[in-house]
Amino acid sequence: MTLPPALLDILRHAFAADALSVDEGERLAYAYDNSRRNALPDAVVFPTTHEQVETLVRACREHRVPVVARGRGTNTTGATVPVEGGVVASFERMNRILRIDPDNRLAVVEPGVLNGDLQNALKPHGFFWPPDPTSSPWCSIGGNLACNSAGPRTVKYGSPRENTLGLRAVAGTGEGFRCGTYTSKGSTGYDLTRLLIGSEGTLALITEATLKLAPKPSALRTLRATYRDVGAAARAVARIMAQPVTPCALEFIDDVALKLARDYGGDGVPLAGAMLMIEVDGEPETLPSAVDAVSRAARGDGLEELKVAQTAEETQALWSARKALSPAQRTISPNKINEDVVVPVSHLPELVDGIKQLAAKHDVLIVSFGHAGNGNLHVNLLPRDDAERERAHACLAEVFALVIRLEGTLSGEHGIGLIKREFMPLALEPATLGLMRNVKAAFDPDSILNPGKLLP
Amino acid sequence: MTLPPALLDILRHAFAADALSVDEGERLAYAYDNSRRNALPDAVVFPTTHEQVETLVRACREHRVPVVARGRGTNTTGATVPVEGGVVASFERMNRILRIDPDNRLAVVEPGVLNGDLQNALKPHGFFWPPDPTSSPWCSIGGNLACNSAGPRTVKYGSPRENTLGLRAVAGTGEGFRCGTYTSKGSTGYDLTRLLIGSEGTLALITEATLKLAPKPSALRTLRATYRDVGAAARAVARIMAQPVTPCALEFIDDVALKLARDYGGDGVPLAGAMLMIEVDGEPETLPSAVDAVSRAARGDGLEELKVAQTAEETQALWSARKALSPAQRTISPNKINEDVVVPVSHLPELVDGIKQLAAKHDVLIVSFGHAGNGNLHVNLLPRDDAERERAHACLAEVFALVIRLEGTLSGEHGIGLIKREFMPLALEPATLGLMRNVKAAFDPDSILNPGKLLP
Ligand SMILES: Cc1cc2nc3c(=O)[nH]c(=O)nc-3n(C[C@H](O)[C@H](O)[C@H](O)COP(=O)(O)OP(=O)(O)OC[C@H]3O[C@@H](n4cnc5c(N)ncnc54)[C@H](O)[C@@H]3O)c2cc1C
Ligand SMILES: Cc1cc2nc3c(=O)[nH]c(=O)nc-3n(C[C@H](O)[C@H](O)[C@H](O)COP(=O)(O)OP(=O)(O)OC[C@H]3O[C@@H](n4cnc5c(N)ncnc54)[C@H](O)[C@@H]3O)c2cc1C
Repeated sequence: MTLPPALLDILRHAFAADALSVDEGERLAYAYDNSRRNALPDAVVFPTTHEQVETLVRACREHRVPVVARGRGTNTTGATVPVEGGVVASFERMNRILRIDPDNRLAVVEPGVLNGDLQNALKPHGFFWPPDPTSSPWCSIGGNLACNSAGPRTVKYGSPRENTLGLRAVAGTGEGFRCGTYTSKGSTGYDLTRLLIGSEGTLALITEATLKLAPKPSALRTLRATYRDVGAAARAVARIMAQPVTPCALEFIDDVALKLARDYGGDGVPLAGAMLMIEVDGEPETLPSAVDAVSRAARGDGLEELKVAQTAEETQALWSARKALSPAQRTISPNKINEDVVVPVSHLPELVDGIKQLAAKHDVLIVSFGHAGNGNLHVNLLPRDDAERERAHACLAEVFALVIRLEGTLSGEHGIGLIKREFMPLALEPATLGLMRNVKAAFDPDSILNPGKLLP
Repeated sequence: MTLPPALLDILRHAFAADALSVDEGERLAYAYDNSRRNALPDAVVFPTTHEQVETLVRACREHRVPVVARGRGTNTTGATVPVEGGVVASFERMNRILRIDPDNRLAVVEPGVLNGDLQNALKPHGFFWPPDPTSSPWCSIGGNLACNSAGPRTVKYGSPRENTLGLRAVAGTGEGFRCGTYTSKGSTGYDLTRLLIGSEGTLALITEATLKLAPKPSALRTLRATYRDVGAAARAVARIMAQPVTPCALEFIDDVALKLARDYGGDGVPLAGAMLMIEVDGEPETLPSAVDAVSRAARGDGLEELKVAQTAEETQALWSARKALSPAQRTISPNKINEDVVVPVSHLPELVDGIKQLAAKHDVLIVSFGHAGNGNLHVNLLPRDDAERERAHACLAEVFALVIRLEGTLSGEHGIGLIKREFMPLALEPATLGLMRNVKAAFDPDSILNPGKLLP
């Protein structure tokens, strides 16, 4: 499909020559994302104002042409792949921090601001924005909001849904609107803000966000605990989360992942049945007792070693295993299937156990690690050939079924996108899906926003 | 209007004789709420199961008869007054705590559970549910969720929107559904949970809630600071909120309120230009330094006295002024107009100042107090005769306009209900209201749920 000339005219009017591209080379660059799926868009635009986004959506709606919002394309689910063609709206140039207001603990940003750039800008004020995906230096706030992306700190500080006050956006009707508040609470009508968060660009395009900031504790301590087996580590996670001091990171790494990381990252990586990386933050006076409380909970049957870093170098050394993981996986399989299932924390032992059994049953290499404090496990299937790839897909369906049985859900932080939408009926009843479809129609009556994503 | 016989038949079938009433006396008891507005329902039912609620809504939809959910009727906005008649569904008997799960930091409850009963049940486990309206002993979790009700602790721990994981509910279509998760984060489709929170029974009837619990800190310290004038106190609030230690209560009381409380409550209540009640929580080892940090911020130009309670008795004495306020107001005016506007914290000084000026301009008695840490001020107009009542209404419109000018919004925690809906266009653009109407239609296509509320 090529765009209707009348639509192209409107776009040429609204966007400068260097902010609109129909060139195949440039379109190719916006055809794929971190999911390795791809589909060519018919045009790419680079909005810098809210008004441009209104013009774009209104014109596309008139011509029933899809509009796909894009931050930096780091998502893992194919959420930005323009499967039905249309126009990709890349927000990379709409990237100003409009206001940092420490007195009101808020910042107002355009959607293209990189998470890492915002964190750097907040540092001198003594604040941070809690959502901290590992991709922080390369991913945009718009993408973070649209996926409800999280990271290690979420266990203590919450996800974007708990850390966003208000939004400006353009609905699928082409109408711009504001929702939410500049205040830290409010009860004035329906909560459209949280509804847009996690909606993966299918309800509205976000053009501005008012984010809730958290004061940055001045001290941090890193702990590393190794365990005899995954069950012992998972039980320690449940113990840590059942006591009052909440760590600001509680990461789990299984035995297979540790071995991989050691092969790649060297002797610094311990060999063990499983490992927890724990961070505790606070003020210098309060930290020692908090570390004590968490350490007590980390101890128990199956603990092999508990190390507390005393210096910055030691902290770095403790994190080395976690850091080596991503590149290590790539050496094994270019076709990693990356899931981020989540279960109630107390069911983690059953989950890691069940995954081990499924890996054996289907003869698939699986490494598991992730944000255990939230019960959020990255289950990475690493097929080394086509036959294993087939088996991996069968295995995956059973992983999801296990997760649902354990009162969990499909995604903790990566979202649904293209890749997981067929599994949505596993997690949600038909009535719930029906209401979600109604909500979609309420915002985007002609289904032009990011078609083919999220809803099955 | 009386109910169609066919509908009554269905209700008689679904509800036991003592769980359905068309008796005028009993209907009268469900005609009003804490707003002092009233309108007679045609029937009252007392569901105890989700299935009964489905039957009720389905049948009422068929006959286009309104359904009004009711917790304990303590809301201040007329949100439960059945202005178009129909059936009141009182959840007072659907009040079981279904599960307390400290390992996963969650509780599952029926909507009729009283907030205070839940807190008591959680105490032995060392947890609490953060939303803590002053009405806690008499208000239901269903009402708390439907209004996004908050309280002093919200400044540190958040409102129901930050403290609810999932819901079970029945939409205006009569269809039951579940939304949200049992996990502490998730990114599986649209966030219907937060959408229902604050929707005042206009989208769906909540039949079960999965609440996120917080560990209860073991120590608490109460501080009382008096200031020369309201401006000095408001500036202290902004200073306290701009430093990293967040108090778990930060309440403001103006000079007029203090005088009232002293007239009613006696000498224990200090006379001052304004007062802050501050609570700091934590573990015994961490508390002293936290109290120091907050005290430092509370000090500054205009501080008259800063008292830290050392014993339980002293704590009670410090709170006496705040406690005397509600009954004291009643002695002045039975026609209190109770607002709960909210502004960004740094604009509090301008808000309290502006309200003083409006009180003088319109010659109306206004007392202001409230959850200052969230910028949430209860602005109570206390007209003593009909003429003052007229003036109070003119004044109120200017109060709202002032709040909006200061980047605030109409309600921090009480909601909109019947009484504030005419002011909604002040706070929300037409496009935003339009989307809210679409969302309403998505859940309740025949507008049978709580008609006449929230949306103008
Ligand atoms: C190395 C690496 C590590 C990662 N680690 C994590 C992690 O720890 N935690 C985690 O949660 N994720 C992680 N991710 C996934 C990814 O980084 C996040 O999902 C991120 O939020 C995506 O941001 P983005 O700017 O790249 O968005 P994109 O990938 O461009 O888009 C993602 C979604 O957001 C929508 N979108 C983007 N901008 C807007 C807008 N302005 N309005 C409306 N919709 C919009 C898109 O349509 C799409 O649906 C990781 C990815 C990589 C490559
Ligand atoms: C003395 C006093 C002090 C108060 N202090 C505070 C305070 O500090 N903070 C604060 O926020 N509020 C306060 N309030 C207001 C009030 O208590 C709260 O709004 C409370 O949450 C209402 O609960 P309820 O059970 O009485 O609900 P109701 O008044 O019965 O109903 C309130 C709304 O919730 C809806 N609703 C009730 N149950 C359901 C359900 N199961 N499903 C769907 N919708 C439902 C109703 O339709 C209505 O729209 C106070 C009230 C009083 C009288």
